[in-house]
Amino acid sequence: MGPTRRPACRKPSRSGKRLAGFPLAPGSTIGIVGGGQLGRMLAMAAARLGFDVAVLTPHGDAPASRVAARTIFATHDDPAALAELAGLCDAVTFEFENVPAAALERLAALGAAVAPDAQALAVAQDRLEEKRFLGGAGIATVGYAPIEGPAELAAAFERLGAPLILKTRRGGYDGKGQAWAADPAQGREALAAIGGRGAMAESVCDFARELALIAARGRDGGIAFYPLTESRHEGGILRRTVAPAQASPELGAKAQAIARTLLLALDYVGVIGIEMFEAKGGALLVNEFAPRVHNTGHWTLDGCEVDQFEQHIRAIAGWPLGPTAALAQVEMTNLLGEEADDWRRLAAEPGARVWLYGKGEARALRKMGHVNRLRPL
Amino acid sequence: MGPTRRPACRKPSRSGKRLAGFPLAPGSTIGIVGGGQLGRMLAMAAARLGFDVAVLTPHGDAPASRVAARTIFATHDDPAALAELAGLCDAVTFEFENVPAAALERLAALGAAVAPDAQALAVAQDRLEEKRFLGGAGIATVGYAPIEGPAELAAAFERLGAPLILKTRRGGYDGKGQAWAADPAQGREALAAIGGRGAMAESVCDFARELALIAARGRDGGIAFYPLTESRHEGGILRRTVAPAQASPELGAKAQAIARTLLLALDYVGVIGIEMFEAKGGALLVNEFAPRVHNTGHWTLDGCEVDQFEQHIRAIAGWPLGPTAALAQVEMTNLLGEEADDWRRLAAEPGARVWLYGKGEARALRKMGHVNRLRPL
Repeated sequence: MGPTRRPACRKPSRSGKRLAGFPLAPGSTIGIVGGGQLGRMLAMAAARLGFDVAVLTPHGDAPASRVAARTIFATHDDPAALAELAGLCDAVTFEFENVPAAALERLAALGAAVAPDAQALAVAQDRLEEKRFLGGAGIATVGYAPIEGPAELAAAFERLGAPLILKTRRGGYDGKGQAWAADPAQGREALAAIGGRGAMAESVCDFARELALIAARGRDGGIAFYPLTESRHEGGILRRTVAPAQASPELGAKAQAIARTLLLALDYVGVIGIEMFEAKGGALLVNEFAPRVHNTGHWTLDGCEVDQFEQHIRAIAGWPLGPTAALAQVEMTNLLGEEADDWRRLAAEPGARVWLYGKGEARALRKMGHVNRLRPL
Repeated sequence: MGPTRRPACRKPSRSGKRLAGFPLAPGSTIGIVGGGQLGRMLAMAAARLGFDVAVLTPHGDAPASRVAARTIFATHDDPAALAELAGLCDAVTFEFENVPAAALERLAALGAAVAPDAQALAVAQDRLEEKRFLGGAGIATVGYAPIEGPAELAAAFERLGAPLILKTRRGGYDGKGQAWAADPAQGREALAAIGGRGAMAESVCDFARELALIAARGRDGGIAFYPLTESRHEGGILRRTVAPAQASPELGAKAQAIARTLLLALDYVGVIGIEMFEAKGGALLVNEFAPRVHNTGHWTLDGCEVDQFEQHIRAIAGWPLGPTAALAQVEMTNLLGEEADDWRRLAAEPGARVWLYGKGEARALRKMGHVNRLRPL
């Protein structure tokens, strides 16, 4: 089963009122909580469709604010700022996973049409809740155990085997807040290193490769899948996406079935990024999901008719979802830190499409841009 | 001769200092005089490459200002505003043909790197000067005569034949400021209708079709051509572009030779739009040129790897020009006035890519957006 050219599944959302006032007409205003590169690319996609964008960010030089009609400079949970955003916007979304879920709840309570909703964000923010939610939906993951303190380590090793990977439940990203441990003694050190409390242990998946699937669900319940892609991480940070992945139709169908189950379990609206392990035995295990546009979908900017950013805007604005087929074979490479200084060479490289995020300071490993290299399918 | 994949001609510009300080690094600021849809799409292309954009426009709700990092709200010739823009920007361009050429001269005098320059704009703003400049460069046009008053009409009919088309020298666009006349008596009426002074008469070209060529020249003198396209006008307004045009390699080469001659004669930097008549005998006559990105190049947004907007930003920023080959057969249709209300249907049409400009009021015949319909080549 390949990517859908047109969304095939149109089960109505559980929430009928979700369609009231939608689709949003061009000229409507879309709010984005967070001002990073994902917000920047969302804002540009929204502008293409004739929308105005209002960004909420505490950062004066935020990449998204520089392409938005309006920016509210405040913290993500500032009550006055949230009230202003709710008043300005016909739909509100977020681009940053560490926005407090309570901020989305407040926006919704103020009458804002928030998508994805606070529940999806809250689940994704807590690695333990995420695993439990996935398990509850019947979606396979690696084995895991909550670790409230060192006392639980021995039991975890006994039940899950060794080695284990210790993770903070909240706040980690790009490989931060994680540490490996071969035994309970190392586990105690690891736990101390990542902060000691509110942690979990996971089995280490002996995977053949890492895959990612970008999916979308509209306000009418329509679902669309982009082709499955392969991810190459280094030090916990995505370095490269190969799109589409070399994958059998059966594997693609299996990944889509997982995504569909998750979208329905979350009663989700918007684009979601799902990271998976393909185990050596062939099983697909979900590692984590991001309730937003995702780095593993940047290849769609140059590889698909409708990219993940426009798709997300379409979904939250109640527009029909767009086609998702790959028009080219794309290798997406993140430009980290000073790698972006290579823009001059990249701009002259045939078949290379450069995206730069307008970030001032090229700190080590900071995502400064990416390049999509295209080949015919 | 097809479109260039990579710019083939790299004659250095006459002005060596044009390269000092270039290419501009991402993070630099690009100024745009004018705030319409062309500025909006230029600003989005600049943001993709990591640039900030500053817009100068008198209109509080200008489409470009809503995707720009900064907007100076003032008239295009406001001295304080021009000084502020020159101070902010590492390169300045314009998107509106009726910007006073003197404003560009002032910016240049303030040290701004303005491209295209005031001369190209001044020539294009005066239809008579434009024809004279084209003729002086050895580029064929229809026959023409200056008409300062009714007394010159009879001589013009005698020399050029009938009918004639009377045009104001300055200020007309989208078919405005023009009138046909079959004889000197009608000519007097036509002249009165269009304003009476500072006019010219042109022979009416019995053309087989109208063609357009989008070309670009970089700061290093490199030149790139997009494929020749066919234009369909109605009431003097572009309705549709068919890209690439059905055209022999000889015709394409002829059009490119004309464009190259014009770019060199103007010592031009940036994207230029050249409108031509293909006469029934096969000759190519230039009708007019626009020293900016052009409506006949909107198809490149979805039909080429590097569209005309990014190409213009690359050119004025001193970056290498990008590839210009068509990746698809594209039909671009302008959405005029209430036609843009059809966004809901267009958003669901397979193969149709909608661009909406964020304009508030859908006045009759106002360009509100466009749609690119793609087919495989």
